[in-house]
Amino acid sequence: MSTAVSPLAPIDVPDMPAIAGVKLATAAAGIRYEGRTDVLLAILDKGTTVAGVFTKSKCPSAPVEWCRARLKGGKARALVVNSGNANAFTGKTGRQATSLTAAIAAKAVGCSASEVFLASTGVIGEPLDASKFDRVLGGLAEGAAPQEWMGAAKAIMTTDTFPKVATATVKLGKAKVTISGMAKGAGMIAPDMATMLSFIFTDAPIAAGALQSLLKNGVEDTFNAVTIDGDTSTSDTLLAFATGAAAANGAPKIGRASDPRLKAFTKALHEVLANLSEQVARDGEGARKLVEIIVEGAVTKASARKIAMSIANSPLVKTAIAGEDANWGRVVMAVGKAGEPADRDKLSIAFNGIQVAKRGARDPSYDEAQVSEAMKQPKIQIKISLGLGKGRDRVLTCDLTKEYVAINGDYRS
Amino acid sequence: MSTAVSPLAPIDVPDMPAIAGVKLATAAAGIRYEGRTDVLLAILDKGTTVAGVFTKSKCPSAPVEWCRARLKGGKARALVVNSGNANAFTGKTGRQATSLTAAIAAKAVGCSASEVFLASTGVIGEPLDASKFDRVLGGLAEGAAPQEWMGAAKAIMTTDTFPKVATATVKLGKAKVTISGMAKGAGMIAPDMATMLSFIFTDAPIAAGALQSLLKNGVEDTFNAVTIDGDTSTSDTLLAFATGAAAANGAPKIGRASDPRLKAFTKALHEVLANLSEQVARDGEGARKLVEIIVEGAVTKASARKIAMSIANSPLVKTAIAGEDANWGRVVMAVGKAGEPADRDKLSIAFNGIQVAKRGARDPSYDEAQVSEAMKQPKIQIKISLGLGKGRDRVLTCDLTKEYVAINGDYRS
Repeated sequence: MSTAVSPLAPIDVPDMPAIAGVKLATAAAGIRYEGRTDVLLAILDKGTTVAGVFTKSKCPSAPVEWCRARLKGGKARALVVNSGNANAFTGKTGRQATSLTAAIAAKAVGCSASEVFLASTGVIGEPLDASKFDRVLGGLAEGAAPQEWMGAAKAIMTTDTFPKVATATVKLGKAKVTISGMAKGAGMIAPDMATMLSFIFTDAPIAAGALQSLLKNGVEDTFNAVTIDGDTSTSDTLLAFATGAAAANGAPKIGRASDPRLKAFTKALHEVLANLSEQVARDGEGARKLVEIIVEGAVTKASARKIAMSIANSPLVKTAIAGEDANWGRVVMAVGKAGEPADRDKLSIAFNGIQVAKRGARDPSYDEAQVSEAMKQPKIQIKISLGLGKGRDRVLTCDLTKEYVAINGDYRS
Repeated sequence: MSTAVSPLAPIDVPDMPAIAGVKLATAAAGIRYEGRTDVLLAILDKGTTVAGVFTKSKCPSAPVEWCRARLKGGKARALVVNSGNANAFTGKTGRQATSLTAAIAAKAVGCSASEVFLASTGVIGEPLDASKFDRVLGGLAEGAAPQEWMGAAKAIMTTDTFPKVATATVKLGKAKVTISGMAKGAGMIAPDMATMLSFIFTDAPIAAGALQSLLKNGVEDTFNAVTIDGDTSTSDTLLAFATGAAAANGAPKIGRASDPRLKAFTKALHEVLANLSEQVARDGEGARKLVEIIVEGAVTKASARKIAMSIANSPLVKTAIAGEDANWGRVVMAVGKAGEPADRDKLSIAFNGIQVAKRGARDPSYDEAQVSEAMKQPKIQIKISLGLGKGRDRVLTCDLTKEYVAINGDYRS
């Protein structure tokens, strides 16, 4: 586990307001880690709707399968998250562990097991001892409080070096509603539906189907546009819960995602998702640079995304950035290997606003010293202009450092 | 540049026999490196046929475009290779450099420029000063000799830590023919047609079209089944030259790849390609472990290949192997992210013959100490049994170490 906080951690951490209808509590259940919390219980008032997006892995974890099956009901009363053990590739035992955990939580909260949502991250393949939840969930249900946001964000961390939270307050109709969320990274992260674990809570009264549409659209340019190492987790889970408590303050009940009254809410949700997903990139394992890749002039947005991802996942590009080397030749390589339409002789590349390559060759004004100076910044923007069409996309990633190798060379042992 | 030889370098280096019709010479042209050779000239007797496979990059280097265009003629009289500069993303200047180099070589050798083949590797985006060839190629043409194989293999190295050669002698009809080759690695290597640079020479009399078929089939399970970092070079080039000199000893002239007399030759060519491509994996940048990934029980061979590549290119799998950690959970992750048919509950995994996971869960006999001991070996075999069909494939890679990051963090600067 890393102990030093990432140098890219946000300096300002927001005050996290309470969300009516949500109570949080954490405990140290000793699932894997010593001397820290590793279980989060969120209790949701009756009437809470739920939406979720999950990993596209063909080998998803038991909690992912559990949540997918429960999402059809559209209702949630509790969320149980543990860190330290992913309950993935645990076979029948894993399925039994999810059922048992849900039953324990249902009893503690006083709801049906089908209203309990579960998420686990950590080591894959180790059986998860669900009886450990039995010891803590009763007490957590009693002690849950509206203000426990930072504690919650800390309990779900694995190799993360800082807790990740974000919040926004916005008008829905004439009422004020709040959207708050948390996320965890920090490796095995590639964009395939939701990435890693993230939980969003709002007091807005939004029907489950509408919430699902909002969430699915919201991840496209946020969580799905972040990659740390191109590795897709078996556990990726993003859940959104809407308690509806703001209806008491006059917020209109929303039945459809196309409702024009959602405009500000949709924007705020996007901002929260973008904020959390950027924090995931800022806390990529071993990260020392936040890297923003912008591809414009592609034939379509989808083509721009593929090219941006090819660059973002290239070990050679990522190690060059770690070495503060403006090695744009490797960017060309990554554009070339993406398999998307690209014309070498129309390609231009800029690092942090400095044009280094223009229409297929080194820019005549190229100044190595100037570019090298720019590469010392903690945030590096690589902009690629393909000159073919109007397709544009943006992806966030981080550099690939020796620390990444160190963290992942002895994570399990 | 690395100075220490990879611990995975082959212990036995073969004696490289002369091939009738091929002469080799090397020089230090000062293209980038100091105090070492960086240019190879191979002179081929009249009648030599040529075949080639190249990078699938959409931004190929100028020499790749040159060779593709010249391949149609099917004839070769000279090969010029330089290291230190890839002549890639060099625009019009790059095309001029290839024309000029070919003209210089044609004059030195006494042939048409269209019979000259070119390959360059090294930094991308730097203009290549072709006039440097003018100073050396005349002398090289005069001094070329049949025995210069090791010198040739050394001159084409970039971050390679050892020269890579292989040879086989086999009967064609009743005559003895020889196949010899060389290759260079060692990063920006992923399987997309030929990978990196490799040159194969034989005295067998084989028509260009037949040679092309043999080469294309030969790379499928050799060079195309090796990945170092998933990054496809702009310069990948594999050329094969058949001088036909063995016809003087009675070797039959072969016009078609389907000729049954080619059986032994085809097998020997495969062995040379497999040998060279394995050496590329053994000399992957920073490599400390050779990793063989076998996927069986997939629905098709193509599906097995995709899954094997997903594992071979996973930074998390590669760093775990560097850390001598039998982290099979990451193998599950990589199977899951490949997007190919896989059933978690039928999946089994073995490391170096020790079963660690069986039908979707940890093997009951799993012994951490035993597996950890096996992970100390310099060669690690990961075998995945999907239990779905008869598709099988094998891919070679290496681990991802801090040395890879170090090499690539300051390659250019």
